[in-house]
Amino acid sequence: MTPPPLRIGLIGTGRIGQVHAAGIAANPRTTLAVVADPFVEGARRVSERYGGRATDSADDLIGSGEADAVLIASPTPTHVDLIASSVAQGLPVLCEKPIDLDISRVEALRPVIREAGVPVALGFNRRFDPAFASARARVEAGEIGALEQLSIISRDPAAPPADYVRASGGIFRDMTIHDLDMARFFLPEIVEVQAVGSRLFDEGAREHGDFDTAVTTLRAASGAIVTIANSRHSATGYDQRLEAFGARGMLQVANAPTSLVSLSTAQHVEAKPPYQEFFLERYAAAYAAELAEFVSLARGEGSTSPTFDDGRAALILADAAQRSAEEGVAVPVDLS
Amino acid sequence: MTPPPLRIGLIGTGRIGQVHAAGIAANPRTTLAVVADPFVEGARRVSERYGGRATDSADDLIGSGEADAVLIASPTPTHVDLIASSVAQGLPVLCEKPIDLDISRVEALRPVIREAGVPVALGFNRRFDPAFASARARVEAGEIGALEQLSIISRDPAAPPADYVRASGGIFRDMTIHDLDMARFFLPEIVEVQAVGSRLFDEGAREHGDFDTAVTTLRAASGAIVTIANSRHSATGYDQRLEAFGARGMLQVANAPTSLVSLSTAQHVEAKPPYQEFFLERYAAAYAAELAEFVSLARGEGSTSPTFDDGRAALILADAAQRSAEEGVAVPVDLS
Amino acid sequence: MTPPPLRIGLIGTGRIGQVHAAGIAANPRTTLAVVADPFVEGARRVSERYGGRATDSADDLIGSGEADAVLIASPTPTHVDLIASSVAQGLPVLCEKPIDLDISRVEALRPVIREAGVPVALGFNRRFDPAFASARARVEAGEIGALEQLSIISRDPAAPPADYVRASGGIFRDMTIHDLDMARFFLPEIVEVQAVGSRLFDEGAREHGDFDTAVTTLRAASGAIVTIANSRHSATGYDQRLEAFGARGMLQVANAPTSLVSLSTAQHVEAKPPYQEFFLERYAAAYAAELAEFVSLARGEGSTSPTFDDGRAALILADAAQRSAEEGVAVPVDLS
Amino acid sequence: MTPPPLRIGLIGTGRIGQVHAAGIAANPRTTLAVVADPFVEGARRVSERYGGRATDSADDLIGSGEADAVLIASPTPTHVDLIASSVAQGLPVLCEKPIDLDISRVEALRPVIREAGVPVALGFNRRFDPAFASARARVEAGEIGALEQLSIISRDPAAPPADYVRASGGIFRDMTIHDLDMARFFLPEIVEVQAVGSRLFDEGAREHGDFDTAVTTLRAASGAIVTIANSRHSATGYDQRLEAFGARGMLQVANAPTSLVSLSTAQHVEAKPPYQEFFLERYAAAYAAELAEFVSLARGEGSTSPTFDDGRAALILADAAQRSAEEGVAVPVDLS
Repeated sequence: MTPPPLRIGLIGTGRIGQVHAAGIAANPRTTLAVVADPFVEGARRVSERYGGRATDSADDLIGSGEADAVLIASPTPTHVDLIASSVAQGLPVLCEKPIDLDISRVEALRPVIREAGVPVALGFNRRFDPAFASARARVEAGEIGALEQLSIISRDPAAPPADYVRASGGIFRDMTIHDLDMARFFLPEIVEVQAVGSRLFDEGAREHGDFDTAVTTLRAASGAIVTIANSRHSATGYDQRLEAFGARGMLQVANAPTSLVSLSTAQHVEAKPPYQEFFLERYAAAYAAELAEFVSLARGEGSTSPTFDDGRAALILADAAQRSAEEGVAVPVDLS
Repeated sequence: MTPPPLRIGLIGTGRIGQVHAAGIAANPRTTLAVVADPFVEGARRVSERYGGRATDSADDLIGSGEADAVLIASPTPTHVDLIASSVAQGLPVLCEKPIDLDISRVEALRPVIREAGVPVALGFNRRFDPAFASARARVEAGEIGALEQLSIISRDPAAPPADYVRASGGIFRDMTIHDLDMARFFLPEIVEVQAVGSRLFDEGAREHGDFDTAVTTLRAASGAIVTIANSRHSATGYDQRLEAFGARGMLQVANAPTSLVSLSTAQHVEAKPPYQEFFLERYAAAYAAELAEFVSLARGEGSTSPTFDDGRAALILADAAQRSAEEGVAVPVDLS
Repeated sequence: MTPPPLRIGLIGTGRIGQVHAAGIAANPRTTLAVVADPFVEGARRVSERYGGRATDSADDLIGSGEADAVLIASPTPTHVDLIASSVAQGLPVLCEKPIDLDISRVEALRPVIREAGVPVALGFNRRFDPAFASARARVEAGEIGALEQLSIISRDPAAPPADYVRASGGIFRDMTIHDLDMARFFLPEIVEVQAVGSRLFDEGAREHGDFDTAVTTLRAASGAIVTIANSRHSATGYDQRLEAFGARGMLQVANAPTSLVSLSTAQHVEAKPPYQEFFLERYAAAYAAELAEFVSLARGEGSTSPTFDDGRAALILADAAQRSAEEGVAVPVDLS
Repeated sequence: MTPPPLRIGLIGTGRIGQVHAAGIAANPRTTLAVVADPFVEGARRVSERYGGRATDSADDLIGSGEADAVLIASPTPTHVDLIASSVAQGLPVLCEKPIDLDISRVEALRPVIREAGVPVALGFNRRFDPAFASARARVEAGEIGALEQLSIISRDPAAPPADYVRASGGIFRDMTIHDLDMARFFLPEIVEVQAVGSRLFDEGAREHGDFDTAVTTLRAASGAIVTIANSRHSATGYDQRLEAFGARGMLQVANAPTSLVSLSTAQHVEAKPPYQEFFLERYAAAYAAELAEFVSLARGEGSTSPTFDDGRAALILADAAQRSAEEGVAVPVDLS
């Protein structure tokens, strides 16, 4: 017999919260039970469209008994407390990344989660992208032999507003963190971090002491080397590529085409349209798969969801990258 | 104020009928009102999943007053009568291709439809494929200058069962007919048809005097020349490409990738996975767009749906191709 | 011991004659012995640059005893007589295509060559292009199973001067003839020809009753179908592609890139530079390989050079295409 | 009036010396005057094939007065002395990279060359590769706006013999040095170096304390960041790619195709043959262009040849990369 849908409490109804609300409504194994946002109008609009009760209080949501699991899509500073309250109620959590910008708060939360024994998944949605997941599975299957180099290119279409940059924790904790997790998806045991950052074009970055351009190099315990190239802008659109180089060959993940049509003229041949606009388009399938996997996790069915510890590891790496970029040293890391 | 959804009566619940049922259920502007199939179990299964009343009688469906429009997905020999009955009731029709295998029955139906003044759309779904539609729009916009040559490659993954071939009317009326309409999407006024067919691999084709491999050449009134290459099989998967060559350049529609991942080894580099399996995958977006456009047609809002006359034109061209392939003559055609 | 270089007499010092002169000078197994052109200044310029004696008389060249073999690159109407004189002297011939525009003159020459027993090679240089030769070898090796469809795209960058068109014998005998031979390179036994031609843009074609755009369809004895798409112009440059479709897969020959660099901007991504300008660039390697193979032929070492009979077959096919395009009938052909 | 060919004295007749000998013989503006190699048999074989007098003494060559310029292709430890002797005789020099493995010897040579006032070119042949040269010219022309990131991928097909590794000075001074110069071709002013190296597969590297896999990150004075990925092996062949990312777009240099043919089957589609074998194939055109440009330099006609100072800069960067990889620090550099 099919179990009843997992009743999900959604906290936060900004852009990413709305993506999750739509995903919950579309998934036959989930239902949107409660929607919380201190800006209650946002919660109401979401619940009207996708179902569930609207509330302005996350505590109400967590304590109501109406939800079987919690999806946290609220601002980063609220994550740690909301995870703690949820697991205290025995509610499995899917939390958007990053857990927090302060690793000491993350470390403090770690034993709390362990003791609660409740699963906490982190929203590293790119692991669920069909292309990246397939590339990784094919590496695991040995198609290219031992993995020796991994190159990740990740460039946003345009720099965020200066205010966003101020609160983001900087490019490494905000943007690179996705790529650091992708690196760990292929090579979980990273032991050293180098990074270099520049301010080339973004006023917001300049204002807040952040970088708009960065390269991060990681060394894995196996000796494999990872390179991550980031930029806060990209004229051709959202640029998300990966290349896994191994002893016997190479797997490459290309950008997703936005059309099958190419144009050839006297000026240039086989020109394709620019890349997809941004992550909502590029990772639409990944968000759906992430949610499905979280249901399995919440149900105790076995799951490949990235966990709280993956979120912690990514933050440790981001901190190390930040320090390396600032101090010009290679930073050894211990993710255990 | 949003009008209520268009209540659609679906006739036929085979593979393509089920695609349409799912599309009707997913489209906020349509609702599945009645489902008819003489094999009433099929109708019931569809109505249970996607809504609507099940009946074993198409006449019941058409006469019930429960449907605002009719979608005909039943076997080809039933199309003419069902269209006639529907328009007699004033019900707009979306009919799967072909209208009929016998052009005389189509010609007889033509004045009936004209007099009824009810819109009849034909299910040439490929016109709604984003890639083909974009290529055609860009040709219309003049990106490649005057269109001089159009090349269409259309190969099914594997030959159909011999029984299907027997009833299909042959490769030109069954398979090429889609490409003939695609040719007319770019170049409506075709004036001459040449074709050559071969029996190379398919027992069913051999048995029933059909071809499994065919090339059709069309001349448009403008002098532009169209080439259509068909095969009943394709080891690499469903092969659907188009190339529009004009005075100032070329637009090419590639096959849809099934993954963004490519593999390079000592044997070969940049190898991609095989093409999509078949039309349900390749044209999923097209079916949805086709339905949306039919709603506009039924509502009298203006529509780009291919019409009964497009269906008739495609059949005339298919007949001409058949004759050309059999008799070794170029066949002039008059589509007016 | 290495034999002395083959002493070649070159007749004709136009564009293609100069290509051959350079090739003869560059090949260590050949030497340019005599150069003949009624426009003796041309002969002198070539001999000064590449060696050999200049003369205004082809008869002088053929009768001089100074040449071991003859390369005929003079105007088409002179080919038949020059071949006849050469083989009468026992001199192996490499003759540019076509043999003649009049098939009756070709047929009359046929027994002459047979009786002389002297090898006559035809300048179908594309057979020696590394890409086409490799594609054909891989078809022969069975990589794609039985060959079922062959598609050839062949478009010149720009229409020739009207005068050229007048003397060329028309697009089929002048341009398509290369593609007809390429078709026979893969499928020697062609049994039927269909063609359609249009006059779309070229004043010269219009003036002289020729076509500037043509599609030719061939049926091979095996049932395989060949499509040849020709145009007298191509905005993107010299367009030379081929696709061999078989029971187990497909081999595709792309246009040669003119640079490894591609450009991506906000307008379009991965845009490459236009194709090569024309045949001198595209087939440079082929001309060299053609000459090398002719040396083997002249030396009786075994050779894959296309022969007089291949030249005759291509002309028969071109005549059939011309007739099919004019009369709207499929033309059966017998190439034996 | 055309000046007489530049008489070149070639020192060293190993693999690269032979490439240069062939290039000198093929270039109409150069002639091979003297060939020196202590292994005089090698010198003799080269002079027999490409001209010039053979000698076992480089001093003889330099002092003979028979050469207008010197091309040094002997083992690295001899470069400094041979450059010094040549410029002392007023002979322009084209020297293979690296100048020396010891930067102090290079610094000592620097004022000697300056005082002599004789041009010394360094054999960074990749600057002359048509693809890299075109990409750089297009960056200079502003096609992608300000250059922000430069990614260089450079992988040899297979690890060299262990003996070679021992004498090579390590991967950074031997292999990366080409890429460091390529970085400076686009961004001459490099100010900081980070590197990470691993020993993953090559016994020779392990034995001699070298790396077989390395990533080097450079920061330019402009803030632009360069990434260089190196490997001593590559299953798919010689892997030489570059990507220049700018404010307005991206220029990419692909690997050179070894064939225009691609294969599609039920297993994979559009698979191309592996990349070229190694540098002799990949950079054939570059060696010819390098020599031509050196002739201009030697003749005082103005030249784009990389100079002794470029060779020195690359070695400083290689040393910095070596130190960074060993000590885990970012190394600031001053190339002035």
